[in-house]
Amino acid sequence: MKIVVDAFGGDFAPLEIVEGAKMALKKHKDLSLILCGDEGKIKELLAGEYLERVEIVDAKEVITNSDHPTEAIRHKKDSSLVKAYDVLKERDDVIGLVSAGSTGAVLAGAIMKIGRIKGISRPALAPILPTKKDSDVIIIDSGANIDCKPVNLLHFALMGSAYYSIIYNKEAPRVALLNNGAEEGKGNELTKEVYPLLKTAPINFIGNKEGGDFMSGDVDVMVADGFAGNALLKGTEGAVGAVLSLMKKSIKSHFTSMIGAMFMKKTFKDLKERVDILKKHGGSPLLGCKKLVVKNHGSCKRLNISSSIDQTILLHEKQLNKRIEEAIAKVSGSEAKGE
Amino acid sequence: MKIVVDAFGGDFAPLEIVEGAKMALKKHKDLSLILCGDEGKIKELLAGEYLERVEIVDAKEVITNSDHPTEAIRHKKDSSLVKAYDVLKERDDVIGLVSAGSTGAVLAGAIMKIGRIKGISRPALAPILPTKKDSDVIIIDSGANIDCKPVNLLHFALMGSAYYSIIYNKEAPRVALLNNGAEEGKGNELTKEVYPLLKTAPINFIGNKEGGDFMSGDVDVMVADGFAGNALLKGTEGAVGAVLSLMKKSIKSHFTSMIGAMFMKKTFKDLKERVDILKKHGGSPLLGCKKLVVKNHGSCKRLNISSSIDQTILLHEKQLNKRIEEAIAKVSGSEAKGE
Repeated sequence: MKIVVDAFGGDFAPLEIVEGAKMALKKHKDLSLILCGDEGKIKELLAGEYLERVEIVDAKEVITNSDHPTEAIRHKKDSSLVKAYDVLKERDDVIGLVSAGSTGAVLAGAIMKIGRIKGISRPALAPILPTKKDSDVIIIDSGANIDCKPVNLLHFALMGSAYYSIIYNKEAPRVALLNNGAEEGKGNELTKEVYPLLKTAPINFIGNKEGGDFMSGDVDVMVADGFAGNALLKGTEGAVGAVLSLMKKSIKSHFTSMIGAMFMKKTFKDLKERVDILKKHGGSPLLGCKKLVVKNHGSCKRLNISSSIDQTILLHEKQLNKRIEEAIAKVSGSEAKGE
Repeated sequence: MKIVVDAFGGDFAPLEIVEGAKMALKKHKDLSLILCGDEGKIKELLAGEYLERVEIVDAKEVITNSDHPTEAIRHKKDSSLVKAYDVLKERDDVIGLVSAGSTGAVLAGAIMKIGRIKGISRPALAPILPTKKDSDVIIIDSGANIDCKPVNLLHFALMGSAYYSIIYNKEAPRVALLNNGAEEGKGNELTKEVYPLLKTAPINFIGNKEGGDFMSGDVDVMVADGFAGNALLKGTEGAVGAVLSLMKKSIKSHFTSMIGAMFMKKTFKDLKERVDILKKHGGSPLLGCKKLVVKNHGSCKRLNISSSIDQTILLHEKQLNKRIEEAIAKVSGSEAKGE
């Protein structure tokens, strides 16, 4: 099993990326990694470990968030990300790519270098969030596709359902359409057209749900255009952070609360673990891409990288892309309506 | 000062509405109220108090959430809400209307019975939310206008700025455009067209902000189309509720946390007060309507009703609608671009 890692993408690259790679190598005995980036630095960080299972592809450039995504993929040919995509494209034995680099560049690279699964109109990112119950929820699309057509959302639903089904080992995840009301006739022009497509799609479609249902535990896969999905995702993350920050501020201003907080350590730990759900799963795969590409948050640390490698292996073994292809084949008739 | 109240709209009507009315009458000595709804029941709840400052307009019907909004306004002529709108329309001395009834019907009634301020393309609701700092934030539109044109968002920005300026007594509130990135070129088709309109509008436009900035305290007025705005608003509310619910569950499962929670009472009270910000302000006015209409949440209690009456008085005294008219006059040239 071979995976290629962009060792120089991310705020804490290369240290955290290489350390995450080592964690994954320790865990998976049959795993080999190809690390792309400055050879000297990577060697230094490897410190002689796992040399027989690590190949280094030297790359002197780094793509940053300030680079224009498609320009960077086109012109920064000696960057760690472009080199990683070249490896993924050219070598059949490499099953996937992991990067914590610029989201735009990772997306652009996937489309320009690897391409979409046949029939998929737009690849999409589907990050995982916790709910107030025991289940988690994903949102697709979360910001990769800003202006969408109905058929895009149909594809998001199919891909999201296949993905959720694998990572949570759940037969028929509950797929909902993000809307401004629960009734069937509700929505903007886009969601009104999407609703009938989802109703007849080979998924467990549970109808319209509002933003307030996102963390309710009643939805597994929330389908949205990338603009509204991004607003919901970022708003939710921001709100969670704001509540914790308000609580912290209040604790500091009451002596009794400070005492109480000392007794509440287990609860704060529970909360932190539940909120930082991505630590467990690593990053989000770019669903709909011909080969597996898992994108991590720029600020991620070694555990995320290691988890992203775990996830890449799982998605490969459970044949995510084959499932997506099969789902797409089933809806090929109804698609024409949503184009 | 006369205000008309829909005494039978809302989950806890008429009891909580009439009690809220009494609270307001106690507070404002020069206030008179017109309560619309079943005369017998209202008299019973008034229990002989404030009779000289309360007029009852008898109405035997009630509009519910299951009624079709425009149909209900058209046909339920003997409903408490339609009677209230008739009073607001016909009597010049009545400065505003307060209702906790069906949002759709309150909106429909405002447009059908009262009409828009000249130049305003679409009225909008702008609910208030807390931020993690000391300031609050409003979102406009939050769901009244689902498919929007650029000019609608320009008007939302002008109205939101005027409203925020009054309720927080702040000269130049920071107005941001909800977007999927901070840079000027970012956005969907709509926001890309809205950006230049806001840039030249007579407001303190601070550029694009993401959903994650909503509760940051760095934005006063978040401008969005009603679909994305609704997703952000509801998602935020849901996330706040989810965090509190996860915390509660964790506290119950650890004995030490239960002890801690007893010491944390002041912090939980602080949090509750900050989160239930609407208690302080009552409901949200329907901005852009020729006369003041303040809509309360269906589940609101007496304190919200009383606060909504306070707010109606404040918005009247500070001449909200005159300010909106002046702002609209200033942009009458640039509007053509966004229609």
